[in-house]
Amino acid sequence: MMKDLVDQVLAANLELHRSGLARLTWGNVSGIDRDRGLVVIKPSGVAYADLTRDALAVVDLEGRVVGGRLHPSSDTPTHLALYRAFPAIGGITHTHSVYATMFAQACREIPCLGTTHADQFFGPVPLARALTPEEVRDDYERNTGRAIVERFASLDPAATPGVLAAHHGPFTWGKDPGASLENSIALEAIAEMAFGTLALAPGIGPIPAHILDKHFSRKHGPGAYYGQKRGSPGA
Amino acid sequence: MMKDLVDQVLAANLELHRSGLARLTWGNVSGIDRDRGLVVIKPSGVAYADLTRDALAVVDLEGRVVGGRLHPSSDTPTHLALYRAFPAIGGITHTHSVYATMFAQACREIPCLGTTHADQFFGPVPLARALTPEEVRDDYERNTGRAIVERFASLDPAATPGVLAAHHGPFTWGKDPGASLENSIALEAIAEMAFGTLALAPGIGPIPAHILDKHFSRKHGPGAYYGQKRGSPGA
Amino acid sequence: MMKDLVDQVLAANLELHRSGLARLTWGNVSGIDRDRGLVVIKPSGVAYADLTRDALAVVDLEGRVVGGRLHPSSDTPTHLALYRAFPAIGGITHTHSVYATMFAQACREIPCLGTTHADQFFGPVPLARALTPEEVRDDYERNTGRAIVERFASLDPAATPGVLAAHHGPFTWGKDPGASLENSIALEAIAEMAFGTLALAPGIGPIPAHILDKHFSRKHGPGAYYGQKRGSPGA
Amino acid sequence: MMKDLVDQVLAANLELHRSGLARLTWGNVSGIDRDRGLVVIKPSGVAYADLTRDALAVVDLEGRVVGGRLHPSSDTPTHLALYRAFPAIGGITHTHSVYATMFAQACREIPCLGTTHADQFFGPVPLARALTPEEVRDDYERNTGRAIVERFASLDPAATPGVLAAHHGPFTWGKDPGASLENSIALEAIAEMAFGTLALAPGIGPIPAHILDKHFSRKHGPGAYYGQKRGSPGA
Repeated sequence: MMKDLVDQVLAANLELHRSGLARLTWGNVSGIDRDRGLVVIKPSGVAYADLTRDALAVVDLEGRVVGGRLHPSSDTPTHLALYRAFPAIGGITHTHSVYATMFAQACREIPCLGTTHADQFFGPVPLARALTPEEVRDDYERNTGRAIVERFASLDPAATPGVLAAHHGPFTWGKDPGASLENSIALEAIAEMAFGTLALAPGIGPIPAHILDKHFSRKHGPGAYYGQKRGSPGA
Repeated sequence: MMKDLVDQVLAANLELHRSGLARLTWGNVSGIDRDRGLVVIKPSGVAYADLTRDALAVVDLEGRVVGGRLHPSSDTPTHLALYRAFPAIGGITHTHSVYATMFAQACREIPCLGTTHADQFFGPVPLARALTPEEVRDDYERNTGRAIVERFASLDPAATPGVLAAHHGPFTWGKDPGASLENSIALEAIAEMAFGTLALAPGIGPIPAHILDKHFSRKHGPGAYYGQKRGSPGA
Repeated sequence: MMKDLVDQVLAANLELHRSGLARLTWGNVSGIDRDRGLVVIKPSGVAYADLTRDALAVVDLEGRVVGGRLHPSSDTPTHLALYRAFPAIGGITHTHSVYATMFAQACREIPCLGTTHADQFFGPVPLARALTPEEVRDDYERNTGRAIVERFASLDPAATPGVLAAHHGPFTWGKDPGASLENSIALEAIAEMAFGTLALAPGIGPIPAHILDKHFSRKHGPGAYYGQKRGSPGA
Repeated sequence: MMKDLVDQVLAANLELHRSGLARLTWGNVSGIDRDRGLVVIKPSGVAYADLTRDALAVVDLEGRVVGGRLHPSSDTPTHLALYRAFPAIGGITHTHSVYATMFAQACREIPCLGTTHADQFFGPVPLARALTPEEVRDDYERNTGRAIVERFASLDPAATPGVLAAHHGPFTWGKDPGASLENSIALEAIAEMAFGTLALAPGIGPIPAHILDKHFSRKHGPGAYYGQKRGSPGA
């Protein structure tokens, strides 16, 4: 199972690069083996062209390196905080993709302005607050994760599979590494469409609730009928 | 003839992906065999890389699956409503392409602001209204098609080969699957140009009627002289 | 010499497509053999992937087809009007490239806002006026060329190697087909940069005259020192 | 060592083209051998496809050509002024990349609006003033370098590895040619994100100082922990 997970994390990191969401080394995908409590993640600052199975880092849920010869991503403590708080997720993707990052830098959540959004996020893409000077000084990356978890106190991470970290950029998740990457690709498209929609219709509000409900439930949950596995969560 | 149609629908779905108009699985092309009353369409939620002739679904005009081993696109009832109402069309393309979707989300039609637009659409790209809660609850996708047909009560689908579904995105059509895809590519360019034109000249109105008439008739109808088959509808 | 010209026109049309400036069949490059008075141009409505030497059309300066088996571009009369009026040019490119077309649709010339612009255009990219109903009805494409020539009554086409046709899009020219294409590529970049500059600094005026003079003369004319052939017109 | 430097400069110029930051011939990368006082730089006006080791020019710090058969870039005197003033830098990249050039043309520095920026630039990307008529007339390119150096009177070029030349475009630098190119790639992303952030939140100020400090020091300086060589300057 770890072998499969390593393959999935490698494939998702390579696809992250091919998708154009990550310039230079600005993005990382991880995956978790819940039975063993181990997380596989991209090494820090390594070019995507140099990624191999052996280059990936393996850490436990407290951040101890237990495999791989390279340092794990500096964002690892953020990933771990999310894995600890959201027991149903199996993969996480972090990017600095352009349009999602614009909203994060503007400290604005992304309202649900259309069905593309409603198909993936049940409501706005939320914004996690900026950290205090103390939170930045001590254990910055772990506190980034804590601020995200705090924002989800009354949100379901399965229905809202991503967040904008204020001043920073997006994190998304899913049932496995590939699903978390798909949510990053979707989020970037959603953000670009929202950017333009707000330019064309500055005062526009979110779509009607009945359309949001319909589109999300069409793809997710027991009544889903999008895709080939009807009645199960959409891929 | 069905074999040709299957080839055309496959080629158009693959080109839809290559063109960059459809991220993930967000888009589908269909084609109809009018003699048999059968529609070939992309299966639901299947990656473009996995599409083959055998993966395509075949349905009749009432939506009964008569061929293929996979579920047809969840948008199939919308396609069927358009095929039933517009007897001259032979192919339909649906996308969530970025700029066309911005206008759909902003609930704004696209005014004809230049000759690129006038070459393809004889007047504005219309907006089909949002659905009521009842229309969303019961037979949502079919009602999406009905709202489009309602919008075309006084429009000619040959002269206006596409529409923006409010809060959702564009549908385009043409004499065959490839022509419907070309209209999606054209619509996305038209939308991007209109977006920028409105930013540069916020109060600008549509182009003069004599330029609209000239450009549309240059490519379409009995006096057309664009392309190699003069006097016939332009490709 | 005609053989060389055909090769150049073919190469420039293929590069036009690869450059991303022309979607579908929306663009054409031509070149002229001044000694023979013959113009080689893309055929109308033919996909770039299907272009070969034999597919190109050859016409004389009055528009009579003298070679090739396909109809020449519907924009041919515009090209011919420019070749007749501007004796020093050897190639013309027409596109509907996105940002240049936005300015054409907005009926705004592009002010010279930086050195990228000043390197290629000695002053604003001018706008040719919209045609009257009569000019559109009779000999539309030839009148498009006439309106451009009218706009250049007091402009030097060597120093201003392109124009925006109102409501339509850009035409550029140069000493040969390749140079005309380079000016289209440059114009699209200039237009995109101007679009963003005007968004960041809405009231900004053109760059100081001494910077415009310096940059244009650095690349063009007897004192040019950009490129490898110092003292000759820059490529 | 010169052989290595030539290889690095060639590779960085080719990557500059592949990255999409330089259209036509609008960009150049150089590198310096500090021991020999020699600078290797792209030749002027040569297409990237035609670049080879032998096509690169070699000049000394006073601009005398000491190697290569082609004229060096017309921007060479600007590069040399920076090498003379900033003794720790080993490579320089100049581009007309679209978003960075928009800010240069708008004569606006780029405020630090997020962690993507803070990872690369410790504070705003500064703007070097426009040159006077006299500075433009005599030794224009060298004076461009002098205006940049003047702007850095109270800035550390290691902490601020790039600048916008007013009306013109960006110059970036680094410990070697490849690092200078990475800073150009980063700057273009930063500029694009800032452009959108300012559209979404027009009055927004820079990020809090404690976040700027944290992100820059995470990647640079003795306490750096990003990447694989912990405690050394990040790549």
